[in-house]
Amino acid sequence: MKLSVQHGKVDLYHGSGGRAMVQLIDQIFLREFANPILAQKNDQALLALPGKRIAYTTDSYVVSPLFFAGGDIGSLAVHGTINDLAVGGAEPLYLSVGFILEEGFPLKDLRRIAQSMAKAAKKAGVSIVCADTKVVERGKGDGVFINTSGIGMMAREQSLSRTPQPGDNIIINGYIGDHGTAIISQRENLSFATTIASDSAPLHELTARMLRAAPSIRCMRDATRGGVAAVLNEWADYFKIGVLVREKTLPIRQQVQSACELLGLDPLYLANEGKVIAICPDDQTEALLKAMHSHPLGQKSVIIGQVTDDPLHLVQLETLMGGQRLVDWIAGEQLPRIC
Amino acid sequence: MKLSVQHGKVDLYHGSGGRAMVQLIDQIFLREFANPILAQKNDQALLALPGKRIAYTTDSYVVSPLFFAGGDIGSLAVHGTINDLAVGGAEPLYLSVGFILEEGFPLKDLRRIAQSMAKAAKKAGVSIVCADTKVVERGKGDGVFINTSGIGMMAREQSLSRTPQPGDNIIINGYIGDHGTAIISQRENLSFATTIASDSAPLHELTARMLRAAPSIRCMRDATRGGVAAVLNEWADYFKIGVLVREKTLPIRQQVQSACELLGLDPLYLANEGKVIAICPDDQTEALLKAMHSHPLGQKSVIIGQVTDDPLHLVQLETLMGGQRLVDWIAGEQLPRIC
Repeated sequence: MKLSVQHGKVDLYHGSGGRAMVQLIDQIFLREFANPILAQKNDQALLALPGKRIAYTTDSYVVSPLFFAGGDIGSLAVHGTINDLAVGGAEPLYLSVGFILEEGFPLKDLRRIAQSMAKAAKKAGVSIVCADTKVVERGKGDGVFINTSGIGMMAREQSLSRTPQPGDNIIINGYIGDHGTAIISQRENLSFATTIASDSAPLHELTARMLRAAPSIRCMRDATRGGVAAVLNEWADYFKIGVLVREKTLPIRQQVQSACELLGLDPLYLANEGKVIAICPDDQTEALLKAMHSHPLGQKSVIIGQVTDDPLHLVQLETLMGGQRLVDWIAGEQLPRIC
Repeated sequence: MKLSVQHGKVDLYHGSGGRAMVQLIDQIFLREFANPILAQKNDQALLALPGKRIAYTTDSYVVSPLFFAGGDIGSLAVHGTINDLAVGGAEPLYLSVGFILEEGFPLKDLRRIAQSMAKAAKKAGVSIVCADTKVVERGKGDGVFINTSGIGMMAREQSLSRTPQPGDNIIINGYIGDHGTAIISQRENLSFATTIASDSAPLHELTARMLRAAPSIRCMRDATRGGVAAVLNEWADYFKIGVLVREKTLPIRQQVQSACELLGLDPLYLANEGKVIAICPDDQTEALLKAMHSHPLGQKSVIIGQVTDDPLHLVQLETLMGGQRLVDWIAGEQLPRIC
């Protein structure tokens, strides 16, 4: 029986384990994610890995709205999990996908999301090898939630998490706050900011190039929820280091700055979905920046600050006026459901 | 700052990427799931695997109610994913966990669920090595949804999915319909059935024993959503085989039978969370049953039917009266949110 994707909606039958579920899986997910492993229709994917050392990660995605400038929940769920593998120094290979669908969700939109996931995965060279679908009653979900987990291969012996030293540089691959601004401007109908698109992108090629050029990189992290400020505070806390960021070096688009001023937000806390922050010893920084500038996702790469020996392990911002202010942990929720 | 687990509730701050989220993760999840890999607080777990061949699976859990006789959403999320690996012939090693929490959910209940997951994982010998938490606004979720993915090691060369032959036996490790009955009797307040507990259990030790005793097992599957009927229909369709099940051999508890009669349900379609169905050539069936009977989760193992050469690839039931009826795919939703 053919599913009416154009006019149909998700109903509870699609989560039943019966024929309706099989139709949904066959006619939307298997078709879009097409690959020989998924086509075996087992409850588990059997994978022959090229090595024995892997990176493994998971993230759920509850972004609202589901579709936004520069992407949608599907491409975000692929890029986000790829990036969590990439910043660990791994080469992303395989993804799992779990859908939680709300009764009544249009099948047309579900197919659009699946197509977007398939396209993002293909472009990034990863395969979606196992999947699951659940359906909840109307009012017990919100359209679509997606979980992706991912497996990547580790070429290096050790984990990419070495204690930074005072004087090390902090580097980012371009403009901050684009994803957060794209989402909120769509939510709030900010017409002036609607030209801002999410920076959602897979970072693994860039990070691989970075690690080849500067093998002494201490650590990398993608600056998603909580933005640059969250990453720097997590590092300061975990490694017991201080951080000094220079405001004049922060790459921020004018429209992002304007949106932040209007809404009382701080770009340092805005989510990004295609930005990696790295800490690198000074003697490899030039080589690192050169490598980053040679990649399309790294053309605007800059040094935004340094590691310090601050005994209080604080993250400080040197402002445009020359003063200093504390970049604390975000106290509350700046923007809920940003990813 | 200490989280008030006893009286606190999930709020949107707990999903922000800021300090509140770190507190929630540290004081509930890291404490309960304690292991050295998770303690590194990276966005990805680095794992050294004992081999290069793995099984990989994912499932989301949306069961309602969250707590039920014999388990809760937490233990279910651990057992379910372990079982999807086990029935592929893999030894489960690592789990990822993604939580989607609804604003207002009591932290006390969240801790109880995390404790239940930790206990189930420990007992089964698997580690929860990466995790993620998202929070959605009140009314956009339903307490807690959990996704788990899992990685297991494959000892065997080939996938456990070989075409069954006519005359092969179909074997199950005990009573069917317990999980479905436990959930629905709690939902419907059926007092006579409340002594029925979910059969939720990790099957990997049993399945390993089965494969040692009967290496020619054609395929195995855990009979969850859609029950025994769904598994048999999927196999009939995928392998192009017929199936004949004998009603008189089906292990069904009297209380499950009574609940089904009262509610117009069919035990063949009821979900199980600790039942594996295997297809085994006749010459290894005796050894298989002996091995199963020696395991606590297999003491009631029985042959429930055979593979046939039915050219229509149907699943048929030989009834108690000696007639035959079709065991079709479940047409609609028998019980929503059963797992």
